[in-house]
Amino acid sequence: MENMFWVGFVGCILAGIFAYTQKKKVMSYSEGTEKMQKIAASIRAGANAYLRQQYTTVAKVFVVVFIILLIMAFATGGQMLSKFTPFAFLTGGTWSMLAGFIGMKIATNANARTAQAASESLNKGLRVAFSSGSVMGFTVVGLGMLDVSIWFHLLRYGFGISDPNQLGNIMVMNGMGASFMALFARVGGGIYTKAADVGADLVGKVEAGIPEDDPRNPATIADNVGDNVGDVAGMGADLYESYVGSILATFALAAAAGYGFKGMVLPVLLAVCGIVCSIVGSFFVKTKEDATQKSLLTSLRTGTYLAAVLSAIAAAPLTYFTVGTLGVYIAILCGLVGGTAIGYFTEYYTSDTYKPTQKLAASSETGSATVIIGGLSLGMKSTMASILIVAAGVIISFYAAGGASDFNQGLYGIGIAAVGMLSTLGITLATDAYGPVADNAGGIAEMAGLPEEVRDRTDALDSLGNTTAATGKGFAIGSASLTALALLVSYVNIVDAKIGNMDLSLTNPTVLVGLFIGAMLTFVFSAFTMSAVQVAAESIVVEVRRQFKEIAGIMEGKADPDYASCVGLCTKGALHEMVAPALLAIIVPIATGLILGAEGVVGLLGGVSVTGFAMAVFMSNAGGAWDNAKKYIESGHHGGKGSPCHKAAVVGDTVGDPFKDTSGPSLNILIKLCSTVSIVFSGLVLTFNLMGLL
Amino acid sequence: MENMFWVGFVGCILAGIFAYTQKKKVMSYSEGTEKMQKIAASIRAGANAYLRQQYTTVAKVFVVVFIILLIMAFATGGQMLSKFTPFAFLTGGTWSMLAGFIGMKIATNANARTAQAASESLNKGLRVAFSSGSVMGFTVVGLGMLDVSIWFHLLRYGFGISDPNQLGNIMVMNGMGASFMALFARVGGGIYTKAADVGADLVGKVEAGIPEDDPRNPATIADNVGDNVGDVAGMGADLYESYVGSILATFALAAAAGYGFKGMVLPVLLAVCGIVCSIVGSFFVKTKEDATQKSLLTSLRTGTYLAAVLSAIAAAPLTYFTVGTLGVYIAILCGLVGGTAIGYFTEYYTSDTYKPTQKLAASSETGSATVIIGGLSLGMKSTMASILIVAAGVIISFYAAGGASDFNQGLYGIGIAAVGMLSTLGITLATDAYGPVADNAGGIAEMAGLPEEVRDRTDALDSLGNTTAATGKGFAIGSASLTALALLVSYVNIVDAKIGNMDLSLTNPTVLVGLFIGAMLTFVFSAFTMSAVQVAAESIVVEVRRQFKEIAGIMEGKADPDYASCVGLCTKGALHEMVAPALLAIIVPIATGLILGAEGVVGLLGGVSVTGFAMAVFMSNAGGAWDNAKKYIESGHHGGKGSPCHKAAVVGDTVGDPFKDTSGPSLNILIKLCSTVSIVFSGLVLTFNLMGLL
Repeated sequence: MENMFWVGFVGCILAGIFAYTQKKKVMSYSEGTEKMQKIAASIRAGANAYLRQQYTTVAKVFVVVFIILLIMAFATGGQMLSKFTPFAFLTGGTWSMLAGFIGMKIATNANARTAQAASESLNKGLRVAFSSGSVMGFTVVGLGMLDVSIWFHLLRYGFGISDPNQLGNIMVMNGMGASFMALFARVGGGIYTKAADVGADLVGKVEAGIPEDDPRNPATIADNVGDNVGDVAGMGADLYESYVGSILATFALAAAAGYGFKGMVLPVLLAVCGIVCSIVGSFFVKTKEDATQKSLLTSLRTGTYLAAVLSAIAAAPLTYFTVGTLGVYIAILCGLVGGTAIGYFTEYYTSDTYKPTQKLAASSETGSATVIIGGLSLGMKSTMASILIVAAGVIISFYAAGGASDFNQGLYGIGIAAVGMLSTLGITLATDAYGPVADNAGGIAEMAGLPEEVRDRTDALDSLGNTTAATGKGFAIGSASLTALALLVSYVNIVDAKIGNMDLSLTNPTVLVGLFIGAMLTFVFSAFTMSAVQVAAESIVVEVRRQFKEIAGIMEGKADPDYASCVGLCTKGALHEMVAPALLAIIVPIATGLILGAEGVVGLLGGVSVTGFAMAVFMSNAGGAWDNAKKYIESGHHGGKGSPCHKAAVVGDTVGDPFKDTSGPSLNILIKLCSTVSIVFSGLVLTFNLMGLL
Repeated sequence: MENMFWVGFVGCILAGIFAYTQKKKVMSYSEGTEKMQKIAASIRAGANAYLRQQYTTVAKVFVVVFIILLIMAFATGGQMLSKFTPFAFLTGGTWSMLAGFIGMKIATNANARTAQAASESLNKGLRVAFSSGSVMGFTVVGLGMLDVSIWFHLLRYGFGISDPNQLGNIMVMNGMGASFMALFARVGGGIYTKAADVGADLVGKVEAGIPEDDPRNPATIADNVGDNVGDVAGMGADLYESYVGSILATFALAAAAGYGFKGMVLPVLLAVCGIVCSIVGSFFVKTKEDATQKSLLTSLRTGTYLAAVLSAIAAAPLTYFTVGTLGVYIAILCGLVGGTAIGYFTEYYTSDTYKPTQKLAASSETGSATVIIGGLSLGMKSTMASILIVAAGVIISFYAAGGASDFNQGLYGIGIAAVGMLSTLGITLATDAYGPVADNAGGIAEMAGLPEEVRDRTDALDSLGNTTAATGKGFAIGSASLTALALLVSYVNIVDAKIGNMDLSLTNPTVLVGLFIGAMLTFVFSAFTMSAVQVAAESIVVEVRRQFKEIAGIMEGKADPDYASCVGLCTKGALHEMVAPALLAIIVPIATGLILGAEGVVGLLGGVSVTGFAMAVFMSNAGGAWDNAKKYIESGHHGGKGSPCHKAAVVGDTVGDPFKDTSGPSLNILIKLCSTVSIVFSGLVLTFNLMGLL
């Protein structure tokens, strides 16, 4: 089966066809009343305008990096860098961008349609929103397969590279473009969405006391645009990067493990099999017309679990006919189970049906400070489950795949576990991307003044989205940590091949200092992304306050607020603030390499993987719990909406916004970007570094 | 000079005499009016009662651990553990306890005296408070020297252990008792002080709108007791542990580096020299009668800088006549300079005379949520300076001390840098411990209704205390990270000697998993300590609210609040909540060892050192900045006291309380306790571990 790489194209075509049918289905629904259409059009326009400007900004950075890579590759005759890398950098970036763009395009078309469908029945609302999520999910996996397959065939058959080791090492560098684009999309989109959200909440909800998504709030359109550019386009680019990254890292490890092309075809087959199983699972996502929220969740779960179980079954023959060891199969199962387990604990810590979030809500009784302390400590505590799961996954995958007798085969096990975890991404991402669409549908229902019962239905859909988003994040974070470890090992293999054995022991001060710098990068990067949100949000707060004060009749609904000014401010703020953290992620690994050499870089990668993982879990879960604690209070506990407890909980939710939607998810990308940047620039670092002079 | 270990006793005696004279000086001042005496007596009584109960609780845990150690040592005939270790565990714990206890004793005697002295002049207030701090500073270093000297002489001459390697490896285990006690003192005291503080602020300042330390607030005595049991007794135990830990770690490295007893006598001589220089420096801490706040700071700085410069000069001949290399001298300088540099940046990030805190204060204009986000991001950003300084310190110390040619000599350089950093602890701790005394003096002045100008003076002294505390924390954190690295290496040396070479490479999944667990421990430990404060604080909030409601005339000052009930609640809360985090710090390293073996433990130590360091800096600086941003607003900016900005800033300050006084400083101890626990239990872990079965 080792020549069945063409199956990748089949997977890509299947994903494409399925995404297309889902798109057709979404578009077949009506966008509702004229008012709804108008609102949807404004959101679409705002989102498009932002993405256009974002891509323009990113394109400039990409051109600069492309030229640097070109010089490194061609001026040194391919010595310092493979000549393919600069071009792979561009394709990776473009595909990642496309994944986000298409997802957002369909989401902005689906939101009003979901609201309209929900006015007919809950089930219809679910179907539209889920179909829209499916378009994104299958676009991401389809494009991912396309990228991997094209480059593999081009290199192997076009350029005749038949050494699996060489091929793997070239391909692993292809991840950098996708990671870099994903970071911009996540950070930029994350800043946008949270600046708008925080700004709208602080003045609207807290100061003026008007409900969320109230049309009188000038930041409300920007808030809805933000859901699309951040939670949809950002997430699409992010998971595209995770998906491709895990496959490419496993490619590189396959050669080192001595599995050759057999070890490379396995992740491709697994991924294609996951696409098929996801499509099958999708057909099971439906519910009765008189669905309750619980039956909705059951229906979504049925789809994802079915896909996972089918994948698990199908993985057995695939493994048997390729690398042929039971241990690798166990590693794949570890990935599938681990992702689900992290998802479960994420939900446990962030859903208001469990104790932790309920206790957090109760801490609002003593004011906003205790809500903040409670949320921070909840988030920190929640790292335990995720880390122990990943730790167990790493150890079991490694030893099951043969780590005790062959170290490199064990490491391959870790890589393939990450691929296993992401194999059903088509459907898990669909359930994840469904959330922001439902959220927006609610916003449109509110703004368009649809009846209470419609809003109730979209609320039910939205609340479900929070749960599924938690599960989606579990997969994203878990796979990121495994992929990061796989990439770290790839880096070491590549450098080892060039300069011989390094001292990577933890007693080596250079490695230790690298670890410190990795931890530092995590904290500083989080600081940058958070303060970016703050800076952008403050400008929105000032603007909303100004409009409330200066536009006569705005509070009585007699005069329209100036939505466009908030949209413009968010765009400006996000673009301005996203560049620094993104550059940090590129500059720190290179600078560390130039000063401390490769040993320091390995330390850095270890430090950023470990601290970044813990921090990502902490921030995502704290943010999620704050959000749901607030919703729990809004649903009538501790005094309900407008009570002092609610005000305290809103402060928590506001702090949680950048946590869960900007800084937290960006960290997943950061840890992989650091690895791919280090791999791509390893030639440079080995040629020039300060430690080499000692 | 290699037999000059007796100099340790000289240092101890000098420190003792100086501490005694300072105590005499403090006690020679009057405790002021009858009311002041009464308040001071209540604080003293509360603090004593708490410490008595704390020590009782801790004693039980100590007995259990002692018995376990005894069994490990004697049942295996000293194979699994040196027979001295159980006893050293007890002495370390007792000494650490004593250090805190004596410091607190003098502090509770000095607070009313400081208030009274401040009513005469600012300079007198400074002198009393600083003398009180000196008692603590010199008690800590004196006891530290005593412990090290007694054990060294006992082992070398009493039991005739003449192999430096064996001696070093036994002595490094002595740190565990001190670390364990310090953790209890820091965590318990930290919970107490912040529960009282948060509780008092939330209801008193925010809800009832009465000033800090207002006698109508039932939690105000508890708040003042807290300053003593947390900031004084906790800090004393903490720094005792740091001081002894750095010396013992260097002992262990000295043998490995081949320096033998010469390498062990150097840290002792350095420490004694630091004691002398600190005494000299202390004489320069005085100011004119018409002192301004700035001249106060200058006077404190003169003392500490002078001590550091003198130490730096004296270290040259000491190094020359012992290990005899210039490189080791450079490492010592690295420590001295590094500690000062971290202190500077700590101040930069937390003092309201610099931009970061001023900007944080400005973010209160948009409410408490932006204050929280701003503070979190400030704290995270601030890790950059500290980590880069430590990173540079590690690399320079290592290479200067000969790391390129002899790895172990380089590592010795890192250990001696930590000793250098702490050598002038006598005076730096005096300036640090001075803070809580000044703070309490202010509280007493307020409660006793002293004139406005006295309160202004104590405020000036207090505000200065915040700055010097920042500097003190810089030394504590910086030295902790260096000592932790030294201990990590000692662990590896001890284990290596028993089982041969381990694979400690970062590509080893076991090591990586250990790293993950180390990061996890940091987060979970911080969560435990923070939520402990929250739980304890909530009980105070409820009680204070109850008293405000139920005691008629309390707000008009006609009826006395029930101070004792708050004191009792804090005591109960702190004791109840301190056990879990402390046990976590012992159980996790042992469990990791039993499951993953020694390689996993090394990973854990790396992970907890690196993540713990970053987290400690983050939490301490965020907390400090929030505190000072609030004070900045209180001094008239952004609307001053009682304005909406002030309310927002109080929320930040409240969140910052457990950050800077409970979780943050405890992390310093955690990272060293993990190392010493691992060292002490290494015999057990090597005998039984799950990985050994694979």
